[in-house]
Order: sequence, then structure tokens, then C-alpha cells
Amino acid sequence: MKKLLVGSIVMAFCSWQAAAQTYVLTDAENSVEKGNWQITSEGLKLKDANFSIEQKVLHGGKQEGSKVITITSKGLTIALSPTRGMDLLHVVGNNVRLGWDSPVKEVVNPQFINLESRNGVGWLEGFNEMMVRCGYEWTGHPVSSEGMLYTLHGRAGNTPASKVEIHVSEKAPYEITVRGLLEEKSFKKVNFETWTELRYIPGSDAFTIHDTLTNLADYAHDYQIIYHSNIGTPILEQGARFIAPYKEVTPFNEYAKKGMKEWQNYAGPTKDFDEMVFNIKPLADSQGKSLAAVINRAGDKGASIEFDTHQLPLLTMWKNTDTLKQGYVTGIEPGTNYAYPVTIEREQGRVKQLQPGQSTVFSLTYTLLGDAQAVQKTEQRIKQIQGDIKPVISETPIAKE
Amino acid sequence: MKKLLVGSIVMAFCSWQAAAQTYVLTDAENSVEKGNWQITSEGLKLKDANFSIEQKVLHGGKQEGSKVITITSKGLTIALSPTRGMDLLHVVGNNVRLGWDSPVKEVVNPQFINLESRNGVGWLEGFNEMMVRCGYEWTGHPVSSEGMLYTLHGRAGNTPASKVEIHVSEKAPYEITVRGLLEEKSFKKVNFETWTELRYIPGSDAFTIHDTLTNLADYAHDYQIIYHSNIGTPILEQGARFIAPYKEVTPFNEYAKKGMKEWQNYAGPTKDFDEMVFNIKPLADSQGKSLAAVINRAGDKGASIEFDTHQLPLLTMWKNTDTLKQGYVTGIEPGTNYAYPVTIEREQGRVKQLQPGQSTVFSLTYTLLGDAQAVQKTEQRIKQIQGDIKPVISETPIAKE
Amino acid sequence: MKKLLVGSIVMAFCSWQAAAQTYVLTDAENSVEKGNWQITSEGLKLKDANFSIEQKVLHGGKQEGSKVITITSKGLTIALSPTRGMDLLHVVGNNVRLGWDSPVKEVVNPQFINLESRNGVGWLEGFNEMMVRCGYEWTGHPVSSEGMLYTLHGRAGNTPASKVEIHVSEKAPYEITVRGLLEEKSFKKVNFETWTELRYIPGSDAFTIHDTLTNLADYAHDYQIIYHSNIGTPILEQGARFIAPYKEVTPFNEYAKKGMKEWQNYAGPTKDFDEMVFNIKPLADSQGKSLAAVINRAGDKGASIEFDTHQLPLLTMWKNTDTLKQGYVTGIEPGTNYAYPVTIEREQGRVKQLQPGQSTVFSLTYTLLGDAQAVQKTEQRIKQIQGDIKPVISETPIAKE
Repeated sequence: MKKLLVGSIVMAFCSWQAAAQTYVLTDAENSVEKGNWQITSEGLKLKDANFSIEQKVLHGGKQEGSKVITITSKGLTIALSPTRGMDLLHVVGNNVRLGWDSPVKEVVNPQFINLESRNGVGWLEGFNEMMVRCGYEWTGHPVSSEGMLYTLHGRAGNTPASKVEIHVSEKAPYEITVRGLLEEKSFKKVNFETWTELRYIPGSDAFTIHDTLTNLADYAHDYQIIYHSNIGTPILEQGARFIAPYKEVTPFNEYAKKGMKEWQNYAGPTKDFDEMVFNIKPLADSQGKSLAAVINRAGDKGASIEFDTHQLPLLTMWKNTDTLKQGYVTGIEPGTNYAYPVTIEREQGRVKQLQPGQSTVFSLTYTLLGDAQAVQKTEQRIKQIQGDIKPVISETPIAKE
Repeated sequence: MKKLLVGSIVMAFCSWQAAAQTYVLTDAENSVEKGNWQITSEGLKLKDANFSIEQKVLHGGKQEGSKVITITSKGLTIALSPTRGMDLLHVVGNNVRLGWDSPVKEVVNPQFINLESRNGVGWLEGFNEMMVRCGYEWTGHPVSSEGMLYTLHGRAGNTPASKVEIHVSEKAPYEITVRGLLEEKSFKKVNFETWTELRYIPGSDAFTIHDTLTNLADYAHDYQIIYHSNIGTPILEQGARFIAPYKEVTPFNEYAKKGMKEWQNYAGPTKDFDEMVFNIKPLADSQGKSLAAVINRAGDKGASIEFDTHQLPLLTMWKNTDTLKQGYVTGIEPGTNYAYPVTIEREQGRVKQLQPGQSTVFSLTYTLLGDAQAVQKTEQRIKQIQGDIKPVISETPIAKE
Repeated sequence: MKKLLVGSIVMAFCSWQAAAQTYVLTDAENSVEKGNWQITSEGLKLKDANFSIEQKVLHGGKQEGSKVITITSKGLTIALSPTRGMDLLHVVGNNVRLGWDSPVKEVVNPQFINLESRNGVGWLEGFNEMMVRCGYEWTGHPVSSEGMLYTLHGRAGNTPASKVEIHVSEKAPYEITVRGLLEEKSFKKVNFETWTELRYIPGSDAFTIHDTLTNLADYAHDYQIIYHSNIGTPILEQGARFIAPYKEVTPFNEYAKKGMKEWQNYAGPTKDFDEMVFNIKPLADSQGKSLAAVINRAGDKGASIEFDTHQLPLLTMWKNTDTLKQGYVTGIEPGTNYAYPVTIEREQGRVKQLQPGQSTVFSLTYTLLGDAQAVQKTEQRIKQIQGDIKPVISETPIAKE
């Protein structure tokens, strides 16, 4: 073992891997924090492998103390932040980028964010991720109900991980798993733990998010989640398309109604466009799997997200094709819910519940489509799931905010 | 002097001790922060002594940067957090534990808490202490009054100490004093300083909290304080009893009314129990001293709190015998006030005031009762104070929240 | 180059200086944070110079992690805080002090401040600066409008700088420039960057604040700024005077109305005085320059602020001659606005706007008047600008809060 490998190295025989080395970067229970840290496949003497995993503590402005973990490989480079709910910052590789250019540049430490500010949209002051977990206590637009302010998109994305572990499989292809524990705990109110996982096989063009939410309380508790996954240039451009197999689509509000005819087609950066949101009921294959993708104009770049409709039955498409400086971006957002305030979601019967001790899993696979062939394969799969089913395109929003 | 003793060591001839060594761990005025730090009686070459005092900086999740000071001795082990208002986390020894098991496990850094969240009960996201100071600007349940949100139980418990000093008496029995300065300061609004003290003679089965609150402003200012002292297993159990000499008890609300008959007896962990709160007017001895205790079923374990009714004229008993996972716990809460919102306490004339420059002291002695003899002695003392006075057990809450 | 000079030293040929050494203390973009750091003119081998520049990281209480930069010279000693919006803490020299004694003593880290607390005046919990930037999204007294709480005096003063650079000119007189970048950014809501500058020629009795605010968004955005500059003893005393050339003065509210006759004269520390605020329309010279000053009773100490009425057309005088312990202080506050809530400022047409990409500059020169001659020169300049113009002294507040 090289000296590089300081810290807790455990030979773990985990249920999901025959054998793996485990590196504990953060552990609140034992008061562990590695800070700046790195391993490389070379240092680990892994044959025919070529990757590194690094944790870096950031400095300056509102990102003081924020941490970023970056996996670098011949395939993808994946960056996520333990300080911000294990959210994905950006993914690059295979000629493609997942991510976007938000006006917010720093990886903002939640210590500097008041989620209640601006009437419940303080969340926007840290929003620049490629994927944010919007949950798990609630999700969606903010609303005041019985004096309580349900802030935009919940709190998981602004929760620093209580435990962070990295597993590297000892056998080729050396699957890497980054695990993070998010605690949403408040005496009397909530006792949620979410073990987040990012699973990546170095060199491949896809990765999986595999999260397990558990209600540790002795009482049932509502939960909601939207996996807010955001894509900008170079995939998003004038003429880019959104594709997904679906039963029905409805506009989120009166403004989105105006965009129904062209809802699957993207404009270039457009002043005063602001945002349109579309609520989708996805179709799935016989296993319950569905997927959605954004494809560039030429059809040779794209990104797809596969998700399980048993876990995440609904899909939101967020079309934010405003100017580049405002944050030109689209969101593919599989979820248990639409983005309406929790009060509306509850009224309309979409809020789910976990029984005492019950766990539930959310699994999503993101694929970076780097050439025309990969794009076509994805299009075919979507067509196959759609089959002969003619989707309903409704013009009437199902709710009024 | 050993090398272990880094930092400011001052031979102080203090008013309360003939001679003591003083260790400054934190001092905002001089920008001192020792971080991880330790002394031992061995290192100090104190004859026939056996204790250590350690400060540790915690890591991970929402406890990043929180500090804990732990006194370890042949008698008690006492842990408190300078980051959280010098509050006591837990005390163990003499076969007994003071403390409980909250769903909140981390020693949450106030940087991660928004006291205004959840309509003013953000405090619950950090609540797991054995003793929290609920004050000093206000205490009690949250209320909005003239646009201002008086958040649950005030702010002292989420105030990081501006100064932390440890005194060790040079003469046997080497009394240890941990002092912490809490500042509640806001231009125009408040200028409170509280010097908190924990006094402990190593090896003994009791310790004293001795706090001095001063109004540094040139205007009189209201204050309120509840010493929210929390006990779970093993003392609390089905058949455990609450004992105290008292003039009168009233239920806090309609729900507590249902529990009046059995108010001094505890159930085991009970699903859907939630909490009942009882307002008590304590009786005192000729010096004004009163005490309250929780005793286990067998009568061989318990904990008592002695307090001065001139300082803390009221007593709240909080019966939170819900399930273990929800936080099975009872509170003995001597205070200037009951736990009603400050608006109600003010209406009913219970809010106290400090004149410009005026100080007031709160002194409480916690004793861990480790055997039947200690328990009996406490029962006798309570009976003695009660004497022939028959308490009034009222069924009507004195206020409606 | 001495070893003392660790870190990024860049030979920069900047637009505003022929040649300067640049030291980067903080840089979020490149995750740089120097922490404790110092340079001296001796170490830099600058002939005939005598100054040092130091950054110190503070500890204890709510100032844990706050940074202070101090320029020490034969002339002035200037302290500012990058953690608190590059605001000036205090300036001493030339027999004079700019600054005051707030009940708040710590340099509070914004991580510990909730600006929304106390119904929008959480800002007061950190207020002790000699000069706070009150802006730039909004300024003035708090107000709730359409559910959003516009907190007291905006957020710039509680924004940690994302970049901090120090430039030292290579040629005598070795002008020092401390630059700091403040980001007010929120997806969809605001994209402001302000490059703040403090310019000081070592040994001189004056310094300049030169701030450039840029709207990086693709949409126009309102802005407001008040340079809240605060002076206490020894300049402020019974018999001290406020002088400025002006067209018109009005009381801020009914209470200030009672003080109109004596509005330019200061009382000594006065119990129950609280504060009076006066709105002033300043007069300027042909270049648009105006100035205001506070002069002591003897007329041999004072401080003046020169500002550009094209940039900052309005002036607020804040008379807070309450007791010493409450914070005996007066404010000279050049601004785009008065201190009314943004709703009133907007109604009355005083809120300014920046077009997409547009920048605007605010430049103010503070002079410490150390003797009767300097005071007289300032009085003469003010008289000269006033000329024959008779100011209107109105008794009616222009708005009702």
C-alpha cells in the first residue's frame, strides 16, 4: 500500500461488490474529515486502469469550505459536491457535456444560503448543478401553508453529507462507487436518511445514480423527489429535440400553453423566453423502465436518462431557453411529483408516503451519447416503448399555482 | 510544566477560588481558538487526582466545526458544546446517564440552522442536548408578533461562545470550572452577556450550573429563561416517577388535561403519545431552594435538579414518552417562565426585566442518584419541603396557545 | 524577494497604474485563500516607505473565520473585512478616528446572521462598521412586498468577497489598492458584480473608495446604494456640527421633525434620543462634486466625505446621539436613495436601473481632518459650493413609512 493511501482503508465484503476497497472521506459519527485527498489507479496498482479520484476543499466567497469530488477517467470526468447534497456539478466526456452555465458560478456552501429568502426561493442562489436532488421532505415550487414556508425544491440539495465513502472494486473493470449519507432530521418533524450512490465503471459512457431513502421514524411520512437534471450547450441548441415515450403531456401553466405545439423542439437562446414547463406521463417497457433524452440538431450528440417508473412515475421537462447569460438550459426531471407546490401535489393525490422503517430506492442511468449511432439507438428504444400508443397532448394545465 | 500545556496559562487569583490555573480555549476579543486540546491531572501533576479535560473539533455533515468539551473523571463524564451555547450534551457516571437519544445525532453547528424555518421551530433540527438554555431574550413556543417571529426557545442554545475558559483549582479536590461567554447582541435591540459556568469537583456525583446574565444596555430589557433539562433511559421507563414539592400544577393545554391523573407517573415508550406538558408552581425551603427529580421504577436510579426559586420561580415538566426512535424523554425545566409564547407570558405578567447594567444569577445543581439510598434521601428532602401543604391539582390550562 | 512573500505575486501592468505588484489573497475561481498573510514595505525593499498590509483570520464566537485586512502606515491605519462585503471597520490616524463603538463587538461572519430575523433587521446583529455598503439590489428600511422580505440595507455588507487582491504601486508614493469582488447572484433574480476598491497612498490623511457595479444579466435591473459612513467619538460630541452644501433638507419622519431647528448640531450622549434621520438634497460644484463633514466642537477635528452627485445624488444624515453604550454615532450617507423602504423609493421615482452589461462607478474620498486648518479649509469649500443659495428647510417628511 502506498503512502498516498492515508486514512481508513477497509477491506469490505459488501453486498453489492465481491470485494472492494473502501475509503472513508467524511464520517460525522466518528468525526472524520479527510479534506484534500486523492487516489489514482496507478497508486492502487490496478492493472490496465486509468483513473483518479480526488476530493478538494474549495475557497473564496460563498464556496468557502465546500468540497468537490472529481472522478477523472479515460471515459468521463464526473464532479459532485458532498457539501451540496452529493449533487452532480458536471460530467464531461464522449464529446459531450452534461451541465450548463448558470449565472451562479461558485459551489455555494449551504452555510451562506437562506432557503427562505426571496419568499422561499433562496435555493436559486446556489443553483448551478447538472443534477440536484429536489426532496425528500417536499419538492416543487414554494408555498406557505399553515404558517410554514415550504421552500423551493426542498432541502436535500443544500444538505452536507454526514458520511462520504468511496469504494473501488478490486476486480476489473474496477467499478467506482461514491456513497454519501444525507440526513434530513428534526426532532418531531422528520427522520429521513438517504444513502446516495454514484456508480461508474471507469472508461464507460454512462453512470448510475442509486439512492435509498429510509424513513427512520416510527410514524409514516410523506416524501417527494424530483431528480432535476440539467443540460445546456453543446447538446442544447436551436433545433435540439426532447424525446421520450409518453402517454400524455400537459402545460405546467398558462404561459407553457403557448408552447405546446413546439414543446419537444428547442429554440436557441431567446431573450424574454424565460421558462416553459411541461408535465409528462411517461410510458415504460415491460420492466417499468422509461427514458428521456435531449438530442442536438445534427443528431450526433445527446444525453439520455433511464429511470424506473415504479420509483419515479412522472416526468417534468423544463425548457429554459432564455439567453446564454441567463442560463440557457433544459431540465429532464424524473420524479414522484410534478413541480407544483406540495399543497397542490397533495390535493391531487401525487404525494407518496413511507411507512415507519420503510426504504425506497431511486435508480437512474445517465448516458452521454457521443455520436449519431448512440443517438439513433436511443431514438429507436424510445420508439419501441412508444409503440402504437398515441400520446394525448392536452392544452389545459392540470393545476393553477 | 509539561509541553502538553500549550496556550495561555494564567495564574489567576479569582474571586471564587483561592488559586486556579486558567486555560483560555476561545477568546473572540483576542482572536484565540485552541481547537483540539487536552489536559490531564497527571500532566498537571495533581496528587491523588484522576481526570482529563479535552476539547475536540467535530467534523462531518452539519456538525462541521462544532466543538465539544469533555470532562472525564472517576466520577462523572460531562460533555458540553461551546458551539451550541455551552449546552450540556450528556453526563454519565454513578450508574446513571443524564441525557437521551434524539433522532438528531449530530452536534449541529448553528451555521446550518435557520431558527425561523418550519414556522419558527428550526431549533428542533439541533435538539439533542441533556440541557439547553432556552433564552435569554425570550423562551417558549414560537409566535409572530408585530411581524417579528419569536422562534422556539430563543437563541442562546444556538449561540457559539465568544470566550471559553477552563479553571482548575490548584488545591484538592481540584474543582473544575468551565466558563463560556454567550453574547446576544444586536444594535438597538439587545445587549445581553451571559457568563455560563459548569462547576464540577472530580469524582463527585453532582455538578452545578452557575450562569450570570447581564444587561449591558442603557435601557431595561425583558428576559426569560428555561433550563430545559432532559432525561431518557435508563432512568426514564415505564413506572418511573416525577417528584417535586409543589403548590399547584396545571395542564399546559387540552391534551395534557387528559393526563392529569397520572401526571407524575411515566408510561413506557408509547406510540402516538406525543407530549404532555405540565406547569408547576414549586415549593421551596426557607432559603428558597426547591428541587425536582425523576426516579426509576425500582427506586434505585434517578436524577435531581436543585434550583433557587428566587431566580427560577417556575417549573415545567415535559413528558415526551413517545417511542424510543422518536426520542423517549422527559424534561425537568426550572425557569422564569412557562413554555407559552412570550406574548402570553407577558400578558400574564411572568416576563422579568433587567435594568441597565443589572445582572442576575441562575444556579442549578444536578445530582446523579446512583442507588436506592440516594433516591430515598432525595424523596425525603422533597417530602420535607412539601410538609403539610396540599397541592392544588387544577384541570384547566391557564392559557390557550 | 523575501520568503515572507509567499503566494501569487504577479507583475501586473494595470490600466490604473504604471506598474504594480499584485497579491491575490482570495480567488474563488481558482480556489485560493491565503489566510493569515502579511507584507511590509521593508520586506518589499521599497525606499522611504513605511507601511505594512496584513490579513488575519479571526476566531471566537460569531466571528469564527472572518477575515480582516489592515493597512498600517505612518499616516492612517485602515481595517476592512473581506468577509463582510469589504466594508471598512475603522480608520485611525491624524489625531482622529473614523468609526464608532457599537454594542456589537465581533466581526460577525455572515454564516451566523439571518438577515430576515427580527422581521428583516438581522443586519443589526453585525453592524459595527465605519462604512457599510447598503445595496446593491436594494437598500433602506425593511419591507415585505408581494411576499418577499426586503431586509434592512440589502445584502452586500454580508457578502463574503469572491476575490481579494492587493496592488502596491512600484513607484513612490507606492499607492496601495485593496480590491474585492462582491457577487450578488441568484439564478433568474440578479447577476450583479461589484469590484470594490480602497485606494490609499501611505502616509496621507485621505483614502478613496472606488466601486464599480456591473449588471451581468441580459435584463435591466434596479439598483440602490447608500454608503453608510459612521462616526463616533472623538469627533462626535456635544457641540459637534454637521456641514454640507445643500438645496433642501426634510425630516425622515415625524420624530425627526422635532429636531429640525437643531438638525446640524449634535447633542452629547442623550438617553432616549434614539435616532433622527434627515434627507438632504446636496449641492455640488461644477464637476458635480459635493462633500459633507462632521466637525468637533473646538473645530480642530473632523472628517469629510467627498462624493459625486452624478453617481450619488442624495445624502442622508443619521443622528444617533443616544448613550455611549447604545452606540453614540452619526452617519454621513451619500447614496442613490434615501433610507425609506424600496417600495417607497420606487413609488417616488428614486430607484435607478442598470441596463444589460452596464456598469456604474461610485467614488468617495474620506479625509481625516486633524487640525483647525484642515477643518477651516473644508468649511470654506462647503461655503463656496453653497454660495448664495438659500437652502429650503422643510418640516414635512416626504414619505410615511
